[in-house]
Amino acid sequence: MARADILVINPNSNPAVTAGLDAALSTFRLADGPSIRCTMLAEGPFGIECQKDVEQVTLPLRRLVEQDNAADAFVIACFSDPGLHVCREATRRPVFGINECGVLSALARGERFGVIAILAQSVARHQRYLRQMGLAERLAGERPLGMSVAETASDERAFLRMEAVGHELVEKDGADVIVMGCAGMARHRRPLEIALGVPVIDPTLAAVAMAIGAVQAQII
Amino acid sequence: MARADILVINPNSNPAVTAGLDAALSTFRLADGPSIRCTMLAEGPFGIECQKDVEQVTLPLRRLVEQDNAADAFVIACFSDPGLHVCREATRRPVFGINECGVLSALARGERFGVIAILAQSVARHQRYLRQMGLAERLAGERPLGMSVAETASDERAFLRMEAVGHELVEKDGADVIVMGCAGMARHRRPLEIALGVPVIDPTLAAVAMAIGAVQAQII
Amino acid sequence: MARADILVINPNSNPAVTAGLDAALSTFRLADGPSIRCTMLAEGPFGIECQKDVEQVTLPLRRLVEQDNAADAFVIACFSDPGLHVCREATRRPVFGINECGVLSALARGERFGVIAILAQSVARHQRYLRQMGLAERLAGERPLGMSVAETASDERAFLRMEAVGHELVEKDGADVIVMGCAGMARHRRPLEIALGVPVIDPTLAAVAMAIGAVQAQII
Amino acid sequence: MARADILVINPNSNPAVTAGLDAALSTFRLADGPSIRCTMLAEGPFGIECQKDVEQVTLPLRRLVEQDNAADAFVIACFSDPGLHVCREATRRPVFGINECGVLSALARGERFGVIAILAQSVARHQRYLRQMGLAERLAGERPLGMSVAETASDERAFLRMEAVGHELVEKDGADVIVMGCAGMARHRRPLEIALGVPVIDPTLAAVAMAIGAVQAQII
Amino acid sequence: MARADILVINPNSNPAVTAGLDAALSTFRLADGPSIRCTMLAEGPFGIECQKDVEQVTLPLRRLVEQDNAADAFVIACFSDPGLHVCREATRRPVFGINECGVLSALARGERFGVIAILAQSVARHQRYLRQMGLAERLAGERPLGMSVAETASDERAFLRMEAVGHELVEKDGADVIVMGCAGMARHRRPLEIALGVPVIDPTLAAVAMAIGAVQAQII
Amino acid sequence: MARADILVINPNSNPAVTAGLDAALSTFRLADGPSIRCTMLAEGPFGIECQKDVEQVTLPLRRLVEQDNAADAFVIACFSDPGLHVCREATRRPVFGINECGVLSALARGERFGVIAILAQSVARHQRYLRQMGLAERLAGERPLGMSVAETASDERAFLRMEAVGHELVEKDGADVIVMGCAGMARHRRPLEIALGVPVIDPTLAAVAMAIGAVQAQII
Repeated sequence: MARADILVINPNSNPAVTAGLDAALSTFRLADGPSIRCTMLAEGPFGIECQKDVEQVTLPLRRLVEQDNAADAFVIACFSDPGLHVCREATRRPVFGINECGVLSALARGERFGVIAILAQSVARHQRYLRQMGLAERLAGERPLGMSVAETASDERAFLRMEAVGHELVEKDGADVIVMGCAGMARHRRPLEIALGVPVIDPTLAAVAMAIGAVQAQII
Repeated sequence: MARADILVINPNSNPAVTAGLDAALSTFRLADGPSIRCTMLAEGPFGIECQKDVEQVTLPLRRLVEQDNAADAFVIACFSDPGLHVCREATRRPVFGINECGVLSALARGERFGVIAILAQSVARHQRYLRQMGLAERLAGERPLGMSVAETASDERAFLRMEAVGHELVEKDGADVIVMGCAGMARHRRPLEIALGVPVIDPTLAAVAMAIGAVQAQII
Repeated sequence: MARADILVINPNSNPAVTAGLDAALSTFRLADGPSIRCTMLAEGPFGIECQKDVEQVTLPLRRLVEQDNAADAFVIACFSDPGLHVCREATRRPVFGINECGVLSALARGERFGVIAILAQSVARHQRYLRQMGLAERLAGERPLGMSVAETASDERAFLRMEAVGHELVEKDGADVIVMGCAGMARHRRPLEIALGVPVIDPTLAAVAMAIGAVQAQII
Repeated sequence: MARADILVINPNSNPAVTAGLDAALSTFRLADGPSIRCTMLAEGPFGIECQKDVEQVTLPLRRLVEQDNAADAFVIACFSDPGLHVCREATRRPVFGINECGVLSALARGERFGVIAILAQSVARHQRYLRQMGLAERLAGERPLGMSVAETASDERAFLRMEAVGHELVEKDGADVIVMGCAGMARHRRPLEIALGVPVIDPTLAAVAMAIGAVQAQII
Repeated sequence: MARADILVINPNSNPAVTAGLDAALSTFRLADGPSIRCTMLAEGPFGIECQKDVEQVTLPLRRLVEQDNAADAFVIACFSDPGLHVCREATRRPVFGINECGVLSALARGERFGVIAILAQSVARHQRYLRQMGLAERLAGERPLGMSVAETASDERAFLRMEAVGHELVEKDGADVIVMGCAGMARHRRPLEIALGVPVIDPTLAAVAMAIGAVQAQII
Repeated sequence: MARADILVINPNSNPAVTAGLDAALSTFRLADGPSIRCTMLAEGPFGIECQKDVEQVTLPLRRLVEQDNAADAFVIACFSDPGLHVCREATRRPVFGINECGVLSALARGERFGVIAILAQSVARHQRYLRQMGLAERLAGERPLGMSVAETASDERAFLRMEAVGHELVEKDGADVIVMGCAGMARHRRPLEIALGVPVIDPTLAAVAMAIGAVQAQII
């Protein structure tokens, strides 16, 4: 039987974010498991930091999903879950959003989850989306780093800021599990978990694990 | 680096259920991926069909978790998620319950989920638990087969009954994704999905996928 | 002081819908009140009937909002509220969506509201959106006509179907106020209200009334 | 066709509040639009500041509604929405409460609303009412001025206090839209909006706009 | 130490209801326990069947509470809980409403409660009140008898109708505990419980038990 | 007719807690009222302070319920409500948990309740349980004393700590009624109520009052 195939799409056009994603996903590239491809949306903005950035990538993502016949499942690797429903409408193959999967996975690891956002302006958008998913009941809080997506992926100060914000989520808001609110934070997951002493969820890893679950369930 | 290890525990003592689980999980046994062991709780009842059955296995499950030093993550493979919190209290390693993971995974595949329960008497217990998890908002409905756990695992009529109940969940209750409410239904997942035309979630596969996500995230 | 100005945008490119809207809005064109302009999105599809149609108009709507310096407030006259948040991001002037305003206005007229949708496929999208707004608690139900937007605006059978669906919402679902789930239904509002014996909300009228409230509040 | 008619009732007997209301409502008195009459409940207390004050005016308000044959819609202009349901029971014409309409209108202008109450003792009553309406999900917070209704309407310090409380709602509670929790605050709306940098809703204006929407919808 | 004293007030002026209450409450008249007085509101309507009836008794109830210096706790024995908050405002002694206490007590006896209302027109009022209390989450359903308060207290057909409606609540709505939605149904409680096979809560008994708990807790 | 009988079970094996309970319950031992027996679970741990302690007593509690033919109702006197549902499954006689009854009773005495927990580690367990009961909506907050069950029952410093924590719940969290989160706090109820100026609920008294209500309702 052919190996299953999962396509992970970075909707922004920042190669450093894509490279970081690709490296992090190697943990799921298992000899006879599904192939995990990682691609970047050429049309995407350099970072998705506002609603306009979100809207710009929805239909390009859908086209990419419609045109890729190889994938058995798709992961949209941006914490705004851009175009999730318009992509789902275009295919019967499963499409996962990393915000949705990150939050869902956090709910299996703690009583109340905290979210580290990149920018203050994203928080209202994320809260709206949490309500849309019907998953706001166990939110402890969301706090922003106050950095750009690009800074978060490359800046050395990013980890220190994530640690500080993580401590606020745990100690002030009562979170006992943390969701990293950006696809570009993967390499910080493990050090942050050690620093905070509570589970830290990388949403892209969470989504790819769900995708693996979905595609492997097809081949029993 | 050593391969990660996941221990899947069937809390009932029905070998047919354990064997069915073990067979279904082979889809996740990938060459260089985590080893996935499947065990049975010797002390467990033949099927977990009421609250008393649930309570009988909570501390035995905890002992098993405490004594197993090899596992990096645990999955409790019974839809009542018996002992989930008492096991989590005993270890810092992640412990997954299949009801919790089945519902969480369904929320990434449809707008409203339906649950196929084994017995009518389980429905109130499951609803209570859904509220406990804060995940009741998108429930379409839960309907029982009216069969024992043992019958569901072995009886040839089980699939026909699951199909009938699944159609009611989809057509009367508005579900667009179905969660199979028992660890013993794994082999029916794919035919049921084809018959109903909506995604069908096997909760054990969902939980093991999340466990794979958790343990592989530790080795980036 | 200059009269205020409200721009009502039909995001589809069906001139019959726009003409119907324009005619219905004459009730709000008062001698010294705000001017109410009604425009059509040239780029829009002939009807907005799926998520893809929604996504196609979000950025064109934003451009229209950015380029119109005359308007003191905007109304997006499609029951999917396409682009609402991306338009709000582009301006400090208020932007109203007719789904949001229709539901909000219904909550001031009855205990539980019912929604008449055009198409069955829209219902899940609307429910998702109701949750996003945090306004699902008093929903009695939503039922589709099973017609296209174009048919609803012009077909003589539309009213009979609306009446039948309205009766189901009132008698089976317990609605005591009805929201018409499309911008193209305005001329049916009053006959439907008489036929059903409960208030019927035209969402465009509801949104324009809120827009009038917002712009007139600026000139006290 | 005859012009529609809206009756706005101040349930307290403070002429300064009524005069302030009457002046503020002139913005809605448009040449060929509905007439907007403003009246005062002779039997009402000087300010409605506790549950007893609320109860005293419920039946007088109903009598007023029953006896006024001219009005096509009624607005009860007190933030406790006294007698709203007993008045609705007495007539098929729409009756609007300014708390309900103020909150509903705020939900179309921001993600989370804050309420400026007059008195600390009112906050629990308002929270109870928000739950009754099913509209508590997007509340950021409510904070009192600690002044009487009369002081709020006339005292020069009222604005400074409103500004301070408004800043707390925005900065500490995360509100991005403010509802003024009293009918006597109308003249402070615009300066407060400028001072806070977020939309400020005067609930009486919000209710009268909804009333205009309701009565004008009858004459298409 | 003096015996505690509880005043149970029937807000309607139907002596048959008061006599029925008084008889039912004898079960709580224990030798050295609190005295339980039962009184009737002379000003009350013959039955409280609409919002107007509710409003008529709020201030008379408050006066009665203010003037009775003997009582250590009060019970308002009408399922609309008229004047509950205005009475609480008037005294630091506890005031119990039978709807509130009936629902709260039902939540300790079953997973989902059903309510037998007297009249169809009461259902919306009760639902509004359930939301106000924040107690709607476990409601199975509410169904009316379609009888007046007086008929329910005296009519021989009342029990047969209660039995039929109770069966619908259990079998169609999934209730496993029933709340009788009127103070005049006390004598039917036990036969109805036997007929339905699930616990049946008389709300007045539930409220008086809570009142006993409150007053006896003062004398430890 | 025989007097009814209520069995109150302390699931821990601390005789001081049982003696304190027994003394407090004397307020409900009325000449011709139900007998109220107070027993201790020999197998129980010295205090129930974690999930493991909870699980250890569930089946022993069930056995005790099954074997006691005298009782007409049972009260499980531990704020974790251990074994509540497994005991209910074993009998048709009512079984009350003191957490459930304490919270339900608090909802009849204030707008928002605060909980004084013994240990920080209990808070997440209690919150999970509040959601399970569907009763979290009116929670103001829960704060721990940071003491053991044994210390709380005997230590003289316990009251001072309860007073301090109670003031935080009232002043910082907005509670206007307090639930004492342990069966061993009964003798502090009245002084705490006086110190805080808001009603304080002893959960065991609340549960026994509900039990009295249930058993006396059987003998009308």
